[in-house]
Amino acid sequence: MRVAILGGTGSFGRALAARLAAAGEDEVVIGSRDPARAAAAAAELGVEGATNAEAVQGVDLAVLAVKADAAIPTAEEIAGALGETPLLSVASALSFGADGVRADPDARSIAERVAELVRGPVAAGLHTLAAANLAAEPPDEDALVCGDDPRAKELALELAGRVVRGHALDAGPLASARALEGLTAVIVNLNRRYRAHAGLRVTGLP
Amino acid sequence: MRVAILGGTGSFGRALAARLAAAGEDEVVIGSRDPARAAAAAAELGVEGATNAEAVQGVDLAVLAVKADAAIPTAEEIAGALGETPLLSVASALSFGADGVRADPDARSIAERVAELVRGPVAAGLHTLAAANLAAEPPDEDALVCGDDPRAKELALELAGRVVRGHALDAGPLASARALEGLTAVIVNLNRRYRAHAGLRVTGLP
Repeated sequence: MRVAILGGTGSFGRALAARLAAAGEDEVVIGSRDPARAAAAAAELGVEGATNAEAVQGVDLAVLAVKADAAIPTAEEIAGALGETPLLSVASALSFGADGVRADPDARSIAERVAELVRGPVAAGLHTLAAANLAAEPPDEDALVCGDDPRAKELALELAGRVVRGHALDAGPLASARALEGLTAVIVNLNRRYRAHAGLRVTGLP
Repeated sequence: MRVAILGGTGSFGRALAARLAAAGEDEVVIGSRDPARAAAAAAELGVEGATNAEAVQGVDLAVLAVKADAAIPTAEEIAGALGETPLLSVASALSFGADGVRADPDARSIAERVAELVRGPVAAGLHTLAAANLAAEPPDEDALVCGDDPRAKELALELAGRVVRGHALDAGPLASARALEGLTAVIVNLNRRYRAHAGLRVTGLP
């Protein structure tokens, strides 16, 4: 498939683009607000680069991999260009405190709020994959994906399956994004507490 | 330690009591609204039985293992008897729909609401352990525990470490309960989708 990675010059977006490029099965285009930075990152990874709005043209799936505070503004900015193209939301809002990391106190997930801003279907996932774990090689982790639209979820699962050694798993409706986004804070807390590079594996699958 | 399991006649409470009894390191007392049912379940498991309010007397840790819709009323009911005893909240509210299971739409976790009702410190955890997985033997899963009070969290981690073959892990402040409680819905969705008995393992620990 053809995939746009919006925010593809950030640490997570770049690592995801590198993994997809290495898997070699998709056409990857990196999007950025700054076309020069997109072009530089794209050249480094051997993929295409463009502005966010250009990057989403003609793709099968767009990945909203910008930082959490840019997720809503970027969704607003690209909504027109994106049209009905499926979108995968991977952002998690975190608030850092001396005693631990907290997820966004807002009840509704970023993914659910994004879904109200764009015309196409939204899936959410990859929240437990750290950029650092993803950067070198496909990590020995599972990737959880949720969504209300079967097609968007299927595309997102297909993408997720290419970047981890474990399973890409359907975690239910888009409402599961509340838990998945909150898991990012849990992962960061585990990393701090145990000096770990934590990820998840689901046990008990048939 | 001495542990009270409130709602110890339910499927999760009973499985947890059985695992602790098998580990043999704690004094376990099962609490129930109905003292006769508590006594029957306790006799079956070889532990003590009492009403919820009696069960918490003199324990090191009380586990609030009632069903989600009983968590808040039970916390109110036992608050006086519990005093400053640490409490471990394990409930997750779920709403079942044709297209998947959703976590409680309330922004605040059950654990955070419980913490406002009792005088002692509250930890939250064990949300990814299914009663069915816990019932037969210690499952090959990790258990996640969070909390703002170091003592309550330490006691909860000690208990969690006795009932799983994997690690008992500190997942950060009590605010992490939002993600942990939401994970129960994710686990149920995975079970439905893959006919699984899903649990979690954290990868990347040192």
